[in-house]
Formats: sequence, C-alpha cells, structure tokens
Amino acid sequence: MKVTVLGNNSALPAFGRYPTSQIVQVHEQLFLVDCGEGAQMRMQQFGIRSDRINHVFISHLHGDHYFGLVGFISSLSLKGRTRDLFLYCDASLKAIIDLQLPWDLGFKINYHFLKEGDAELLLKTDTLEVKSFPVYHSVPTHGFLFTEKKRKRRLLPDKLRQYEIPKYYYKKLSEGFDYTKQDGSVIKNEWVSEAGSPDKKYAFAADTRFAPEMVEHIFQADLLYHETTYLHDLIDKAAQRMHSTTLQAAEIARAAQVKKLLIGHFSSKYKNLEPFIAEVQTIFMSVELATEGSTFEC
Amino acid sequence: MKVTVLGNNSALPAFGRYPTSQIVQVHEQLFLVDCGEGAQMRMQQFGIRSDRINHVFISHLHGDHYFGLVGFISSLSLKGRTRDLFLYCDASLKAIIDLQLPWDLGFKINYHFLKEGDAELLLKTDTLEVKSFPVYHSVPTHGFLFTEKKRKRRLLPDKLRQYEIPKYYYKKLSEGFDYTKQDGSVIKNEWVSEAGSPDKKYAFAADTRFAPEMVEHIFQADLLYHETTYLHDLIDKAAQRMHSTTLQAAEIARAAQVKKLLIGHFSSKYKNLEPFIAEVQTIFMSVELATEGSTFEC
Repeated sequence: MKVTVLGNNSALPAFGRYPTSQIVQVHEQLFLVDCGEGAQMRMQQFGIRSDRINHVFISHLHGDHYFGLVGFISSLSLKGRTRDLFLYCDASLKAIIDLQLPWDLGFKINYHFLKEGDAELLLKTDTLEVKSFPVYHSVPTHGFLFTEKKRKRRLLPDKLRQYEIPKYYYKKLSEGFDYTKQDGSVIKNEWVSEAGSPDKKYAFAADTRFAPEMVEHIFQADLLYHETTYLHDLIDKAAQRMHSTTLQAAEIARAAQVKKLLIGHFSSKYKNLEPFIAEVQTIFMSVELATEGSTFEC
Repeated sequence: MKVTVLGNNSALPAFGRYPTSQIVQVHEQLFLVDCGEGAQMRMQQFGIRSDRINHVFISHLHGDHYFGLVGFISSLSLKGRTRDLFLYCDASLKAIIDLQLPWDLGFKINYHFLKEGDAELLLKTDTLEVKSFPVYHSVPTHGFLFTEKKRKRRLLPDKLRQYEIPKYYYKKLSEGFDYTKQDGSVIKNEWVSEAGSPDKKYAFAADTRFAPEMVEHIFQADLLYHETTYLHDLIDKAAQRMHSTTLQAAEIARAAQVKKLLIGHFSSKYKNLEPFIAEVQTIFMSVELATEGSTFEC
C-alpha cells in the first residue's frame, strides 16, 4: 500500500503548496482521497494515470477538499472514460456536480452518501477494505481507513520440493489450501508455507479538531495522516476553527499506537514546515511531512 | 497595458500547461480574463496579487474557462476582502457560485450578465474601456476588447522653461489645458506639449470558430489573443468543435490589421508548439505563443 501526496495545504494555496488531495494505491488499484483544486494537474506532474482511479472519497465539503473534483471528472469524460466512477461523499456534492456537468459524461457516477457520525464499511474486496469513520469539523466530515488485507502465505521452496508439490498448485497453497496427493495423502499447508505479512492499514483524518474519539477506528494503523493546520502555540485558534495542532496530532498517534504519522493541511501562514516535525517529535518520534509528490509506503 | 498568461491550454491540462486564464493590466488596474482550474496558483507562482483584481470577465461556461473561479473567489474571501468584485459572465454562473459559496463572503459580487450575440460597453473610466463582442462557439461566448485610452500629452521641457510655466500647472498641461499667465496672455497647450501615444487595444477572442464577423470589433488592435486549438490539418475537427486553426487565426489577424497576434488554447494532443508559429507565419508574421508566465506589452 502506498500513499502519494498531491496537495498538503489548507484553505489557501501557498508557497507552491496545493490544497488537499492524495492517491492511495493498494495492489494495482488507485483511490483518490479528496480533490482540492489542481489535483488533476498534480497527477499529471507526478505521472499518475487518472483513468486508473475508480473510487473517490471526499472527506467533507470545504472547497480545499473538493474544488478540483469537477475538473477531474470533466477530464475523465473528455478522455473517453466509459467505466463507472464510485464517489463517496456528502449528499450535497451531487447537485454541485450535476449543475456544472449536466450532460452525458459517457460514464456513470455511483454515489454513496456519507452520513454525519457514521462509521461504515464502504468497499470490500478479496484484497482490501475501505471504511469511513467520523472526525469532527465545522461541517460533517469523515476519515477513511484503508486496509490491505492479509497477504498470501509465503511458500517455502525447500519444502515444496521435498513434498513434490506440482507448480500449478502453488497459487492454491499461497491462499491457504492443503494439497492432496494422488495416493490420497494430505500435505498440510503449514508444512510448506508460513504466514504472510499481516494486514496493512492507512488512516486518513482531516479536517478535524483534537478527537480522541477516532482512536478506536485507527488503532495500530501502519500509517496515519492527521491534519496539523497549526503549530501548538495556536491551540486556541485551532479549537475555534475545529482544526488540530502538532501536539494534538501527536497525541492521537501515540494513543492509537500507529507506526508512523504523516502530517499536512498546513496553514498558509507557514512557509517553513520543519518546526512541525520538531514539535510533533516531542511526543511522537515517527513522523514525516506530507510533502507534495512524495510517496509513503506501508 | 500588459497581458500575463496564466493558462494557455484547452479542455485538458497537459505538459504542464493549465487551462485558460489571463491577467490584463491597464495602468495600475488588474483584470482577470477567464479563470480555468489552477489560475489562483499561477497568480501566486507569477507574483500577481489577486486582491488587486476588481473585475473578472468570463468568456463562456466551459469548465476550462471557469473551474478555477470558485476557488479564486473563496480565497479572496478567506484573505479578508471587503471590496466589491465585478463579474461579467453568462447568467448561469451565478447559481454555480451560490451553490458552492452560500455563506457571506465578506464582500459583494456584482454580476453583469452577458447576453448571447451582444456587443456592449462593460466598463468605462477616464483611462480605459472594456467592451464585449460576440464570438461563436458551442455555447454563448464573448470576446473582450480592452482599450487603454489616449495617454496624456507629452510635455516639452525646453518650451516649459521658455514660456515660464510654473510646475504646479504641468499636470493640467498634460491633460490638454492651455495656460493663462497673470498678465492675461494665453500659452497654447500645443506650444509646450505634443500628442501622447495613441489608444492601445487588446482583444481576447476564445473560444471561437473561424469568425470574420469579429473583425469589425477588433480592427487595428495592438494585440489580439486568438485561440488556435489545432494545427491547420485538423480544420474539419476544428469546424466540428467550433474551434479555430493556426491559419484561421492568422486570417483574422491579417483581416483586422492587428499589430501582433498571440495564440493559445492548444489541444492537449500537442507537446511541441513551435509548428503553431511556423504555420501562422505563412500568413501573418507577428505572432507569439501565449506561454504561461510570459507578459506581453502593448
């Protein structure tokens, strides 16, 4: 699972930083999380093929999280897309899109409307799950949890040879099946393979006030993106605007026992972002800036 | 008068080129013409202060000419603007803005709705005029003509000394007034000054099919921006989509006797734009590519 940052700034673009948007890649699938203005240009700049995106998740309807969506959808249409697009968002977004793109796009948009306060399973396949969970901002807002499901069992070459298992059956073994020989004897899966990597989890939480309520949803995630609009001296402004500070994001990361914290949604007042890292690290060491164009693996 | 190109591409952004947007500066005033996605980021990148813009002209309601407008307006509001904004556009744009920005912005948007086929005087001050004129695309579309009005008369220092004219009166002289001495004798303005530069005209024409109808409106403009979505081999596609080719833009420039032609709105199929210049120059020599970030004076 990989996360590529397209935009990391808050309401106003500044210092070359664009508003919020990310690409989450799970196996070969690309997911778009939020779509601030310019997201489609960033995709081009970073070599991301927008036609590979089938599912779009919009956290909330503040412009810096969705003003790029109508352009993104329009471009998909102009490029001849026919496959359905799945859009998970507040119900109000449909009218905004319909008003600006009233014609036949050549493909269907399947809406899934997120309800305030809900935690839901949005998408489930053999290899991944996406869930929403509530975060707390001045309009209904959701976080998203991407889970790359338990990888295949790792086969042990020596044992495969020892038990003379035919190659065509390796895929079944990696999926956990036993092998039955022609003489009826059973080769147990655990004799020839070992457990694969555990599930991988990426949690996206923005925009939100300091919200310990989210910890249960993101517990032990491998990577947590949490907004840090302000350094901690502006804790009062953060509270007033329902945003978070560095130390608040760090507290959430520590309480949720995540492996790594990614921070972004920086206020346009900050040119230099290094103090964000320094402040977070007084509480939580494993932190990185969500620099645009960077990709973070988990 | 100066024109700075923020975006020069057609419907799809490509090769780092953004959709249509330009800044026209007349004396100290900045005007925004079209506002494709990312226009506000380009302004930041090119050091243009968006708060100095009071008048916005939108040629037509295709997304590549207005999808950046709601972000631009939202950012003005977040930056604390209180001065009115004047918006010249198709009437349908108001509902699109109201739906996405339903709250009090802190300033008023004064709409002037452009009617299909109309040529109108939109704005007139002592120093400039802006007129609309019809161009011909698949939706109602207008071009815009900016006129920097006759500059002040140029004073002749030797003559000012010779006729002993006091300095406090120089401004009046530059505005064309005669000077009356204390003894009642009159110093004629033309004895101490000469004509300033003539009016300067910039015409913006996009998107449009080949439209000789526009020539009367842009006649002898100093600078004409005319769309060239395609090279001339795609003249059939241009006709079908109501766009223009290189040679068609060149024909208009020649017929209108403009001093210089600026071309843009390039299809995303073209990476190399040099052939656009070469083709235009078979008909009209004084042509430049509307390169993003470049400023053209007239």
